[in-house]
Amino acid sequence: MNVSVLTIGDELLNGELSDTNTAAVARRLAAHGYRVRESLCVRDEMDDIVAALQLMADRRAVLIVTGGLGPTADDLTAEAAATAFGRPLEENPAAQEEVRAYFLRHNLTMHPRNDKQARLPVGVEILTNRLGTAPGFRLDTGHCDCFFLPGVPTEMVAMLDEAVLPRLERNHGEGLPTRERVLKVFGLSEPKCEALLVAAGLPEKVQVAFGVDFPFVHVKLRASGSEAETLLDRTEPVARRALGDFVVATGDASLAQTVARLLTEQRKTLALAESCTGGWIAKQLTDLPGASAFLERGAVTYANSAKRDWLKVPEAVLETQGAVSAECARAMAKGIREAAQADVALSVTGIAGPDGGTPGKPVGTVFIGLATASGEEVKGYRFSGDRDTVRRLSVCMALDRLRRYLEKH
Amino acid sequence: MNVSVLTIGDELLNGELSDTNTAAVARRLAAHGYRVRESLCVRDEMDDIVAALQLMADRRAVLIVTGGLGPTADDLTAEAAATAFGRPLEENPAAQEEVRAYFLRHNLTMHPRNDKQARLPVGVEILTNRLGTAPGFRLDTGHCDCFFLPGVPTEMVAMLDEAVLPRLERNHGEGLPTRERVLKVFGLSEPKCEALLVAAGLPEKVQVAFGVDFPFVHVKLRASGSEAETLLDRTEPVARRALGDFVVATGDASLAQTVARLLTEQRKTLALAESCTGGWIAKQLTDLPGASAFLERGAVTYANSAKRDWLKVPEAVLETQGAVSAECARAMAKGIREAAQADVALSVTGIAGPDGGTPGKPVGTVFIGLATASGEEVKGYRFSGDRDTVRRLSVCMALDRLRRYLEKH
Repeated sequence: MNVSVLTIGDELLNGELSDTNTAAVARRLAAHGYRVRESLCVRDEMDDIVAALQLMADRRAVLIVTGGLGPTADDLTAEAAATAFGRPLEENPAAQEEVRAYFLRHNLTMHPRNDKQARLPVGVEILTNRLGTAPGFRLDTGHCDCFFLPGVPTEMVAMLDEAVLPRLERNHGEGLPTRERVLKVFGLSEPKCEALLVAAGLPEKVQVAFGVDFPFVHVKLRASGSEAETLLDRTEPVARRALGDFVVATGDASLAQTVARLLTEQRKTLALAESCTGGWIAKQLTDLPGASAFLERGAVTYANSAKRDWLKVPEAVLETQGAVSAECARAMAKGIREAAQADVALSVTGIAGPDGGTPGKPVGTVFIGLATASGEEVKGYRFSGDRDTVRRLSVCMALDRLRRYLEKH
Repeated sequence: MNVSVLTIGDELLNGELSDTNTAAVARRLAAHGYRVRESLCVRDEMDDIVAALQLMADRRAVLIVTGGLGPTADDLTAEAAATAFGRPLEENPAAQEEVRAYFLRHNLTMHPRNDKQARLPVGVEILTNRLGTAPGFRLDTGHCDCFFLPGVPTEMVAMLDEAVLPRLERNHGEGLPTRERVLKVFGLSEPKCEALLVAAGLPEKVQVAFGVDFPFVHVKLRASGSEAETLLDRTEPVARRALGDFVVATGDASLAQTVARLLTEQRKTLALAESCTGGWIAKQLTDLPGASAFLERGAVTYANSAKRDWLKVPEAVLETQGAVSAECARAMAKGIREAAQADVALSVTGIAGPDGGTPGKPVGTVFIGLATASGEEVKGYRFSGDRDTVRRLSVCMALDRLRRYLEKH
């Protein structure tokens, strides 16, 4: 079934904000087998909204509208719907109840302006908004089932799940849901992934799509229909084998989550010594609840004094090889592992730029050390890109080195 | 002048990607006084693209189209334009030259499929794409000046600046450019900012808009016309006085950049001891080139052993007050400042959740210490929200404490 989306708001058309609601609606609808056919965005202008509502309601069986349900003067959606579909505004008692209940639940005093949010076209069905003051509503024009939702993404998404999708299934039947498995790959290019999967010969009914979330390639396996899950259960291991140990995570998980899971499962502790990544590895790991189970400590050793004091990097290494060297990365990994008495340790030292490069060690030169009970292993890299890219690649490469070690031990 | 935007691509309507091109186009056009009136997004389907082109070209004097110019089978834009406007496809020699030049410049072998990118409607003007293989083109229907650009954001934006805006100004005259000043505020709510600015009485010709980039409120002062800059020069200091020392940054700068600038200007060094923020403060500061000028070191002390070894937090404090306590934050700040022999030091310890809270110290309890030559100052906070929110607020509050200290010294 084809669905149209209409998003409303000046902020979406003056460059302040990108519209994320269309993609959020599309993702949820696709999972239930409905297809967003087009999306229109207009400003907070009465005539534009009225014309857009009529245009879109004329085209498809279902229309999802987001935005313009708030209490302020530039919130025009309810009035525009009244005009577009010849349904005068009225005080909607159910909507009044919803708005009042919201304020009561949150111990807030209701501003008289919030009354406006209960003035809705006649004959609409109210859609509860658990997370905000603006109730949504459903208006059936006879040709088009129109759902009006607030523009705030968290409220909109919750209402989509709780109020819109159940009604779509009830009124329009279930779609042909598409199921998806995502494999996240680090270290192989998109064409290389494609070639490996072609060679592996996946079932024809499984669609393969690629996406890039730099520096990761997302391989998406998709199937529709009642046997989608079975088909994907059978296909996923084939795809994994084809991509080998370059698969770093699955589904919504990240590389950092894979590393955290492996450390936790193996009851190993970790220590970090970061120079050019400046705490970003530690930040990614501590984003995750439960990081205290494995992260003993991290050092952001920007100055040489910190490398000497805390990591026991020998003065001679700093003087002869410099802070950006394989020897320094080795000493850092060894030093932090011993200081923390951790099972494993990672070290990163490099030149992220834009300044600090030399002919022998240009910007992008990075050394990553991994220390374990069996000693230290250091590799040198030359990443290209700006400061953010070099740092990002360093973080991912370090975590990936650790992942590969943990998967073998 | 009103402009329409048409974005083309399945990935924008199946939930894979949010459309960022519309906002990018709108931002650049607004700066030159042009106004995006609506934006439509359609799938890679010939009929849909043809209908959309006709609809949008009919409505406004200028149409900007992005996407569907690549070499693969699902890139249909040129052919759809040919159909929509009755301009058959032909080999365009100028486009052929552009495509060939791109491959030559990058020492790449051209794939025969790339020939397709030079098959364009008759009578179009070629728009150079410095950054990719797909040339853009301009097609004047007589009623509407249509610009066709690739969907890759970096390519699209470069072409907008280099090829589209100069032609718009030549063909349609300059718009009434809007100038903007952004003040970033931390610690005041949006309504509070509004009330302070209303009380300050800004000139009527200056529009005030608000945006939220959590936890910051962005106050946007806007003016149009030839005297815009003068008017904003006069208004900005008034607004700053009204908002007081809650203004943490201006324009594109961030709070971290303000702190980095102050430290660099004052030639002060900094050391960090982070527990619940897990390296995020260090990460934000080292995102900036030149951080080595002031950042001596940072410690991510997750385990108590690290707090004892490196920060000399007394065992008694850890045992009696616990690691999340004002005393511990004080000892951490003092300890890291002494270990690093830095001018100033920040410490953060807290419970980010979701687990680890107790009735006395619920999730969101955070202590932040600031150590300087005159001693340590610790404040306790109780932030509400999920793990990410508590950590984000802790990072911003710590940086803001440091900013306030530096601005007074």
